[in-house]
Amino acid sequence: MPTLENDRFLRALLREPVDRTPIWIMRQAGRYLPEYRATREQAGSFMDLCRNPELACEVTLQPLRRFALDAAILFSDILTIPDAMGLGLYFEPGEGPRFEHPIRSAKDVKTLGVPDPEDELGYVMDAVRTIRRALNGKVPLIGFSGSPWTLATYMVEGGSSKEFGKIKGMLYSEPDVLHQLLHTVAQAVSRYLNAQVEAGAQALMIFDTWGGALTPPAYRSFSLHYIEQIIDQLIREHDGRRIPIIMFTKGGAQWLEWQAAAGCDAAGLDWTIDIADARRRVGAQIALQGNMDPGVLYGTPERIREEVARILQAFGPHPGHVFNLGHGIHQHIDPDNVAVLVDAVHTLSAQYHTL
Amino acid sequence: MPTLENDRFLRALLREPVDRTPIWIMRQAGRYLPEYRATREQAGSFMDLCRNPELACEVTLQPLRRFALDAAILFSDILTIPDAMGLGLYFEPGEGPRFEHPIRSAKDVKTLGVPDPEDELGYVMDAVRTIRRALNGKVPLIGFSGSPWTLATYMVEGGSSKEFGKIKGMLYSEPDVLHQLLHTVAQAVSRYLNAQVEAGAQALMIFDTWGGALTPPAYRSFSLHYIEQIIDQLIREHDGRRIPIIMFTKGGAQWLEWQAAAGCDAAGLDWTIDIADARRRVGAQIALQGNMDPGVLYGTPERIREEVARILQAFGPHPGHVFNLGHGIHQHIDPDNVAVLVDAVHTLSAQYHTL
Repeated sequence: MPTLENDRFLRALLREPVDRTPIWIMRQAGRYLPEYRATREQAGSFMDLCRNPELACEVTLQPLRRFALDAAILFSDILTIPDAMGLGLYFEPGEGPRFEHPIRSAKDVKTLGVPDPEDELGYVMDAVRTIRRALNGKVPLIGFSGSPWTLATYMVEGGSSKEFGKIKGMLYSEPDVLHQLLHTVAQAVSRYLNAQVEAGAQALMIFDTWGGALTPPAYRSFSLHYIEQIIDQLIREHDGRRIPIIMFTKGGAQWLEWQAAAGCDAAGLDWTIDIADARRRVGAQIALQGNMDPGVLYGTPERIREEVARILQAFGPHPGHVFNLGHGIHQHIDPDNVAVLVDAVHTLSAQYHTL
Repeated sequence: MPTLENDRFLRALLREPVDRTPIWIMRQAGRYLPEYRATREQAGSFMDLCRNPELACEVTLQPLRRFALDAAILFSDILTIPDAMGLGLYFEPGEGPRFEHPIRSAKDVKTLGVPDPEDELGYVMDAVRTIRRALNGKVPLIGFSGSPWTLATYMVEGGSSKEFGKIKGMLYSEPDVLHQLLHTVAQAVSRYLNAQVEAGAQALMIFDTWGGALTPPAYRSFSLHYIEQIIDQLIREHDGRRIPIIMFTKGGAQWLEWQAAAGCDAAGLDWTIDIADARRRVGAQIALQGNMDPGVLYGTPERIREEVARILQAFGPHPGHVFNLGHGIHQHIDPDNVAVLVDAVHTLSAQYHTL
């Protein structure tokens, strides 16, 4: 494997000195890019694109050709695991993901197996290998998975949900069934993430998109607990380099201290918390990733630079910040504004770094 | 007007001693009740029900006939104000509220007038008077409005939204236009709430359902600022009794200190914060309302009682707690579980009160 040309992202996650604050963008390979829409059309459905390693590699690289991003992220979906478990993932146009066979009972949970990452999920590992080769050491590659709780919400609800009525029903009336489900999913996630590392992922991110829908005690026992279980089982060094782990509970900034103690290297922040407060609360325990409102990218270039400056200043002259949006980029954003953002982060952050 | 038989709710909001922790439930008059569904069918559409003072009164009273709730809340919708401004509210089946004429430009904002509460919104005031008369002093009546920011999200997006792309676009590219809109809406809300007090509302609640979608500085200037402006303009005493104001920013517990300083008597909490922490943070400045996960009502009676006990204990032996869910009750909840909840709050809270 070629030497890494740009390791700002990995260094920042380990709170090592860098010359500029690194930046990548959640859903940077996405619908806001016309070239993504063209490749997506060529592939067929969204899952056809995920299942085609060459095309998944192509869309992973597209944003890197336009912008000086400091990391690439595997193009895939968090629902590949439940799909490989046999739940039958499909996408209803304009409706988001759905499962043909949702999990509704103890019996459904018992029949679930842990998929072999190199068999049922082999297409993901092929994509990781293809992308890593194509990156050729330019920037590091991030592998990822949904958290067990977040995956379970889709598996039990049968798709997206606003109120989480079915899984909350399970949580409050059959907690043991839910724990069994989360345990199985956590095993699947651990194997899946380790296989991504073996295939070439240089950092890992666990997306706990729906952890913020829980009470504090329920977050601890039904989400955080299983993320900790996964982190315990992950390969932490590969090819002589540490594999940093980022965990991100959207809407979970109130539980940042718990996240800092979970064994991860960094926590993702949405935009509802001041990153200065977040840093004060976690100190030097972990790095922080975030935390710009994706809506800022609708603003003028001046407004985007102003918001970048505000966040960089709030974090201050410390190691351990990876700039990002607090959630995925919206599809109607002008790519020119993304160029403004990436440039602003690199230019305006220099003053906070001594390397 | 007859003397109030049960003033626990008003006393708790003013942090005065009570014999039991009072409870009411957001959306207590709602689809989980078969009698509500019957009246709704009789009325026609949801807005037909809101516009019919007799039927709005009937559904307001329905939950009080079943459960020993400590307050009634006006049956209405937060979108009556933009509807009265001429935006043309309608409901797409299964899709939530929509506006025929959303606000998209400075010109749209300029043409907006402040509705006369006794004219365009006279049906709401008629409902308040009818309900207050029908309650006959049994429990106090809560009036309410959406916050300017929350109303503006619907007015600009044209309905419900997940990403708030259009209003974030306005916020970050034309902030002055948005401020003008919020200013006009705030004037409308102040007049509307004061008219509700004149008509008989004994406490007021401002629902900032979407304040939690903002960054901390944007929350302050685009949501909290206008709530403060409204609170400054509200009638605080009527018929010799203080009119307590509850403000509720869903997903806004991180900004509780700001809310405590906003001039309200109480802040609503969702379920993502431990109410013990919330109380420590606001001290004796304001009362707190909440904070049970609505999903708990899917649980067994034992589980519901356990969660009630946890929240009551976390709040502790202090004045100033109104028990509630952290958001509206879900439509598939069994009314028998609501009876368990109300009874548990009254029974288990006695030990924390000395009156």
